[in-house]
Amino acid sequence: MTEIERMKQRVAIAAAVRVRSGMLVGLGTGSTAAHLVRELGRRLASGELQRVRGVPTSVATATLAREVGIPLVELPADGVDVTIDGMDEVDDRLDCIKGLGGALTREKIVAAASREFVLIGDHGKRVGTLGERTPVPVEVLAFGAERTAARLRGLGAEPRLRLVDGAPKTTDNGHLIVDCHLPPGTPAEAVRAFAAAVDGVPGIVSHGLFLGLTHRVFLAGPDGIEELVAG
Amino acid sequence: MTEIERMKQRVAIAAAVRVRSGMLVGLGTGSTAAHLVRELGRRLASGELQRVRGVPTSVATATLAREVGIPLVELPADGVDVTIDGMDEVDDRLDCIKGLGGALTREKIVAAASREFVLIGDHGKRVGTLGERTPVPVEVLAFGAERTAARLRGLGAEPRLRLVDGAPKTTDNGHLIVDCHLPPGTPAEAVRAFAAAVDGVPGIVSHGLFLGLTHRVFLAGPDGIEELVAG
Repeated sequence: MTEIERMKQRVAIAAAVRVRSGMLVGLGTGSTAAHLVRELGRRLASGELQRVRGVPTSVATATLAREVGIPLVELPADGVDVTIDGMDEVDDRLDCIKGLGGALTREKIVAAASREFVLIGDHGKRVGTLGERTPVPVEVLAFGAERTAARLRGLGAEPRLRLVDGAPKTTDNGHLIVDCHLPPGTPAEAVRAFAAAVDGVPGIVSHGLFLGLTHRVFLAGPDGIEELVAG
Repeated sequence: MTEIERMKQRVAIAAAVRVRSGMLVGLGTGSTAAHLVRELGRRLASGELQRVRGVPTSVATATLAREVGIPLVELPADGVDVTIDGMDEVDDRLDCIKGLGGALTREKIVAAASREFVLIGDHGKRVGTLGERTPVPVEVLAFGAERTAARLRGLGAEPRLRLVDGAPKTTDNGHLIVDCHLPPGTPAEAVRAFAAAVDGVPGIVSHGLFLGLTHRVFLAGPDGIEELVAG
């Protein structure tokens, strides 16, 4: 296991304390969240945790959760107790960008339905302003996608259709991903205004700016685990 | 043909004057829009119109347009010249509710991409306040649909999953429709606030409130056609 993988595993194990017996848990998607899913499976198998059930945020996570023995249910009307998921960037407000893994819409539905939403990642994900390193992924309907991309450009972003092996990436929901690169130096208020404007564009299913949703962040660094709690 | 069908045909024929040779035309969905599609096909066949191409807003409209000989293209980045579509309710601002036919998302993408957006219908569709007779259709992802319905209830609506022959209605995009009944007497400002709030709920693809998009309305009544133009 590489040092970065060890960090991901350490932070997932640290965050697993937020899950207690009997809880309904939103299960994130991506390499860091996968460590959390495996850790929950291990704790269920050992008896450290009991009666935990999961709501997966992707087909891939559902497959992994079944492999490690976590019972799965559909997202109920009253939401979940806690969701633990990775992120691509996180700022001092604990707002984040998610979706480089492509599961942003289901992740956002479950995050917004969580009594506690917890982010996990390595300390390199921390940024001064969201969008400074990574693009904002936007899930768009294939119908009218060129027009939708033009509208994203009109909002100040440089949109690029995400490709996998030369073909457009398709999400679990059957849509496309447009990665929106914001101009260098875009201030935080402009990023928030971009998020609000994108919400109103028809043809857009969701975007990777998760604002005001996070309760707690665990960050792994060379000196251990840092825990941040929303004010 | 019933009297109501004759009114729909008359208003479609009246609105067809907005289409001129060489135009790219957004083709609406539903029984009134179908009369417009047939009329455009007739004008193309007779030579009254030339070089008109269409962007269909549903699979059903695409099928009809092919039958009547309208060449079809995908929605381009710079939009369409004019779109003509039906509506379920229209108010004095020319704002409307659409989507009882289930094609609201593609209709809204094309409407918002139109240099002129034209509504057609019978005079019975005119209301004082949107939502007073018909529910607001909302297209939602099947993933988390119960939670999404609970959030719509939290915004003050009474959500009902749309069924067809006892099974959930599925849209051309593969999603569900939740019809949101607003409380009697909901004022116009509250309807607009509802629309803005719905835009920000994850799991919602689009909703049937079309605000600030309409340029012109043709209404058929017993005394002829009334034409309203946005101020």
